[in-house]
Amino acid sequence: MDPHISPVELKKAYRLITHGPTVLVSARHGGVDNVMAAAWACALDFAPPKLTVVLDKATKTRELIEQSGAFVIQVPTAAQLQLTHAVGSRSLSEAPDKLAAAGVELLRVDGHDLPFVAGCSAWLACKLLPEPHNQQAYDLFIGEVVGAWADTRVFQDGHWHFESAGPEWRSLHHVAGGHFYAIGAPLSAHD
Amino acid sequence: MDPHISPVELKKAYRLITHGPTVLVSARHGGVDNVMAAAWACALDFAPPKLTVVLDKATKTRELIEQSGAFVIQVPTAAQLQLTHAVGSRSLSEAPDKLAAAGVELLRVDGHDLPFVAGCSAWLACKLLPEPHNQQAYDLFIGEVVGAWADTRVFQDGHWHFESAGPEWRSLHHVAGGHFYAIGAPLSAHD
Repeated sequence: MDPHISPVELKKAYRLITHGPTVLVSARHGGVDNVMAAAWACALDFAPPKLTVVLDKATKTRELIEQSGAFVIQVPTAAQLQLTHAVGSRSLSEAPDKLAAAGVELLRVDGHDLPFVAGCSAWLACKLLPEPHNQQAYDLFIGEVVGAWADTRVFQDGHWHFESAGPEWRSLHHVAGGHFYAIGAPLSAHD
Repeated sequence: MDPHISPVELKKAYRLITHGPTVLVSARHGGVDNVMAAAWACALDFAPPKLTVVLDKATKTRELIEQSGAFVIQVPTAAQLQLTHAVGSRSLSEAPDKLAAAGVELLRVDGHDLPFVAGCSAWLACKLLPEPHNQQAYDLFIGEVVGAWADTRVFQDGHWHFESAGPEWRSLHHVAGGHFYAIGAPLSAHD
């Protein structure tokens, strides 16, 4: 594995997404890998860490997750703006070369038969907690985080370091269409 | 109502929170008003607009929502950093003067018997869609957005204008403790 990628303690995994970034959702089943973008993903619990993600019925990634019971939520960087937009705009069902065309490279992580997207700042390997009513009525999926990793150039010792990493490491926060905001300056309240 | 506050079309209400800000959750029941901070809130659907929010069983706001079946999700600004931290750190159960001590002022909105927090950039009035299993098992609440408003100095014509509004209008994105990031620079992908 890339020497910059380091495990994150599960009890601090929520910090990887609590600031509300747009994420990439990836899954694998029957020899098929796919990746999509999702702005509607959110932390749900601390320990064991859980998260929610909204997956439209039209997406191929949802089908792979329903079949395999597992997925990865990863945090793309400003350097991956175009990749994020591309995987969020095209469906594998209509574009079989979607991943290659978007420039997606996949990483292997020992012990997890899942497609991890290279170049992201953080990865959360999730086990689907099946909730058929939520999935059917709301397109809402719940995952338990079973493994977490981050690139130490931007997340280290349990904290994001966007302010000292280069601007290419900023997380993306979707608005609409191809429009995003990067995460900005740190602000701290006093007790 | 403040002349800067303008209704947002319900079909564009999702844009008020798609970028993942930390929000303030407020509710009223039996003459009691409360406000808390929540980093784990997320859009769930476009039309009718829905959202999710995670509310711990220890919070007074959750109790008010369960009793009244309604709540407001509002987007605080960088100018409200200290207020956001304060309402997220103390419970009304232990500090009856919590709102006054945090500097919270409430607005009235005609037709909605709910406490709207003054000075925010956007407000979403929600009707609770009761889902007892989600609420008990996951502390996960689903709301349907029945009214939306924004301050036109930072959100107009269906779009955020963080880049032209002053830095005090930036949304807050919680990390941990009293630490947040403000939203940053706009980035647009090409098709």
